[in-house]
Amino acid sequence: MKPDDPLFENVTARDRIFEGKFLHVDKLTVLLPDGRTAEREVVAIRNSVAVLPMDAEGNVHLIRQHRPAIGRTLLEVPAGLIDPDESPSDAAIRECEEETGVRPGALRELITYAHVEGYSTAFMTLYYGTELDRTGRIRLDANEFVEPVKLPFDELLSLVQSGQIIDSKTILCAMMVRELLLKKD
Amino acid sequence: MKPDDPLFENVTARDRIFEGKFLHVDKLTVLLPDGRTAEREVVAIRNSVAVLPMDAEGNVHLIRQHRPAIGRTLLEVPAGLIDPDESPSDAAIRECEEETGVRPGALRELITYAHVEGYSTAFMTLYYGTELDRTGRIRLDANEFVEPVKLPFDELLSLVQSGQIIDSKTILCAMMVRELLLKKD
Repeated sequence: MKPDDPLFENVTARDRIFEGKFLHVDKLTVLLPDGRTAEREVVAIRNSVAVLPMDAEGNVHLIRQHRPAIGRTLLEVPAGLIDPDESPSDAAIRECEEETGVRPGALRELITYAHVEGYSTAFMTLYYGTELDRTGRIRLDANEFVEPVKLPFDELLSLVQSGQIIDSKTILCAMMVRELLLKKD
Repeated sequence: MKPDDPLFENVTARDRIFEGKFLHVDKLTVLLPDGRTAEREVVAIRNSVAVLPMDAEGNVHLIRQHRPAIGRTLLEVPAGLIDPDESPSDAAIRECEEETGVRPGALRELITYAHVEGYSTAFMTLYYGTELDRTGRIRLDANEFVEPVKLPFDELLSLVQSGQIIDSKTILCAMMVRELLLKKD
């Protein structure tokens, strides 16, 4: 209980009501602020990371990936789920190398945000990656198809401006790294 | 099929494998680019809207709301699911009035983004709302507890900067409206 928060809903029970291969659904029983109880359905899934890798020439290393959930192929920053016992920064370096073939030597955390605050347990941590090492070690899962795309950072900003980048992690990475670079100038 | 897109995964079957009160899970069978088939689990849920309402004095009208999925009470822009047969802009005006008691007379679309490209069908449309009418008609669902919070827009930007705003819709609204206002100056 958090008696100082009049909006707090105390979770009194958590039941797994759907067990999938990739995601699960839990039914939370919560005690409402007015003393009644209610049920909330939430997706239980691991936290994830994403990184915007930029090389010394000002190019960013992105990927194209098809997203069956929305039936669209997107241009995105490399990203993925954090493995059990893996730190978020290690996951970011690993995913970046596996998907783009470049390995960041330096990471700066941009933000950790609730990816889907309404119905998922997941948090997403975003990084800015620099000091890139081109290892070429692209390793994809058996059912994963991604295409590496290198382009100038300014071009990514134009794509965000014109609404052609439509996932929150890539939009936030682009806007936050632009801010970081503006502050440095 | 989209033969021009080498990453395209054609959905050949869609089966509802979990039916909840609030969200559902569909199993998609997809034809991979290499001709094999694979299964993808996706959350099926309605699209949603959010709006950053700003009054003539430069205050924004937000809400505090508890999010059981992550066990945190957040400061957020008003938001909600689009009702069947409702337009996104009508939903934004309705949700804004129901949660904050102010009704925007003018809406400007900021972006439509895939809220959870990895595992949800949902898109989220963000608006900037102005010409506010203080109707005071706050109407919450029976199990919904939110607290209206009015604060200067600059204060919201500071909270975003310091990492105290942690949901993508509110962060994006704040950053995009700031950009809009900077362009006007």
